[in-house]
Amino acid sequence: MSILTFGTVALDTLKTPFGRRKDVLVGSATYFSVGACFFSPVSVIAVVGEDFPEKHLEFLKKKGVDLKGITVVKGGSSFRWEGEYGWDFDNPKTIATHLNVLSGFNPKIPEAYKKKKFVFLANGDPEIQKRVLEQVSHPKLIACDTMNYWISNTRKSLLMLLKKVHLFFLNEGEARQLTGEGNIVKAARAIQKMGPKNIIIKKGEHGSLLFSGKSAFSTPAYLLETLYDPTGAGDAFAGGVIGYLAQEKKLDDVTLRKAIIRGTVMATFAVEDFSLGRLGSIAKKDIAKRLQEYKKLTCF
Amino acid sequence: MSILTFGTVALDTLKTPFGRRKDVLVGSATYFSVGACFFSPVSVIAVVGEDFPEKHLEFLKKKGVDLKGITVVKGGSSFRWEGEYGWDFDNPKTIATHLNVLSGFNPKIPEAYKKKKFVFLANGDPEIQKRVLEQVSHPKLIACDTMNYWISNTRKSLLMLLKKVHLFFLNEGEARQLTGEGNIVKAARAIQKMGPKNIIIKKGEHGSLLFSGKSAFSTPAYLLETLYDPTGAGDAFAGGVIGYLAQEKKLDDVTLRKAIIRGTVMATFAVEDFSLGRLGSIAKKDIAKRLQEYKKLTCF
Repeated sequence: MSILTFGTVALDTLKTPFGRRKDVLVGSATYFSVGACFFSPVSVIAVVGEDFPEKHLEFLKKKGVDLKGITVVKGGSSFRWEGEYGWDFDNPKTIATHLNVLSGFNPKIPEAYKKKKFVFLANGDPEIQKRVLEQVSHPKLIACDTMNYWISNTRKSLLMLLKKVHLFFLNEGEARQLTGEGNIVKAARAIQKMGPKNIIIKKGEHGSLLFSGKSAFSTPAYLLETLYDPTGAGDAFAGGVIGYLAQEKKLDDVTLRKAIIRGTVMATFAVEDFSLGRLGSIAKKDIAKRLQEYKKLTCF
Repeated sequence: MSILTFGTVALDTLKTPFGRRKDVLVGSATYFSVGACFFSPVSVIAVVGEDFPEKHLEFLKKKGVDLKGITVVKGGSSFRWEGEYGWDFDNPKTIATHLNVLSGFNPKIPEAYKKKKFVFLANGDPEIQKRVLEQVSHPKLIACDTMNYWISNTRKSLLMLLKKVHLFFLNEGEARQLTGEGNIVKAARAIQKMGPKNIIIKKGEHGSLLFSGKSAFSTPAYLLETLYDPTGAGDAFAGGVIGYLAQEKKLDDVTLRKAIIRGTVMATFAVEDFSLGRLGSIAKKDIAKRLQEYKKLTCF
């Protein structure tokens, strides 16, 4: 079953302890769609400027990603972020954010996208996330991500959106912030009462949690000896999760658990190089191999 | 197979967000032996003062713990620590430490203990850990724990000890401190070169890692809705691990993984109440039930 995602397709200038890269391909919709495309076809809603390198769009097309929903703004500049990561690869220092064409973007989805059944709304303004969602006629799965900024500044809109959401991705800090609950189990149970019956708590290098109905699932991250650039890990993870769910056409607890393992594996490829260096060059057999390694790492 | 442990049997005055308790039973050897006694018999080497409440020793005896190795110093006061935990249950604030009888204690192990095959040296001065170890004739498994203080201040002694150790428990920060290696996989591999072929990295609420020969194992913590007092979690964990290994009389990777799951479960009981409130009152069926729950939490 095919997926519709709404997010960013962007250019980052990044510094990590391993080097600096200028204007490389990033964006939530980029990482998500490459993470998902191994499992199910993906269509993207996003906006870029006329300066956006054609080679990046060609790269995504070659992955089978449907880009009909990408608006190219004539004379516009693409969304850019510049930042620096330290050795802990956490809390990057922002040097510059240029919203450019992202500012004031009012997404209109192509007619062909309106019947999409699996929808992933990447982190963004919940008002705009809602506007995209309203254009899809009968989605079977609505998933979304968010971040601390929206929880603080657009709480009401986020709570309205959450009533419609089936699967909600957020990190531990965001779950605590949203609920005012320190214990993560209690926080997840409180979020379920806000709407989403399925919550995935992302814990980065410590793995992830799933709360699905009354059930809970906890799984560690894959162990990597090299982490080059954490950008996009969460979106590649979501891509693996939603991609697998759309492939299996099921949303039960067992399928969700298996989906999280795929997401975990896709996230590892995202962080092994800058930009899409690694995630963009893997084959299905690499995923299968890492899945086997993950099973070996966690079985008892 | 029976276990010999060397550690502390002590009294803590604790404050957590859930209340305050004065002079309650704690100590590394206490938590370890109660965590281990469900799987294998345990004998304890420790020192207490004449002021140590008889009821605590009675409690341990009723659990089947062999206390012949506990020295009671006439006129001496027991080791006491006073501290306070905040909501994050991490980095407690020390209010007072009274080493008392612990200071200058030179452990002599009873004749009957010299043929013990499984030895656990709880966190302490590596010089003294070594002195205990030298009194055991042919141990089959030597396990030990340590902390940042000994890594900084008695590094040489610790490195000497590690050459003899088969199974080493430490946390993430300690592994990085000991090796100067930021990546945890690389840190563990570096520690293996120091002697111990099996390393267990404790990550608290994020679970634990095992590096055994060339294999790696990662497993999450159990999800608890209530955490009252984190004291003793690491020692109860080690108790479950070593207890299970001694019960199975094996040290292979598969048995080590199963042992870590037992340790994980024992640690959950340690933190569900102050002191031994919960860990000291469980039955074997509670362990079996939680093991089942843990399997449900982690299977995919």
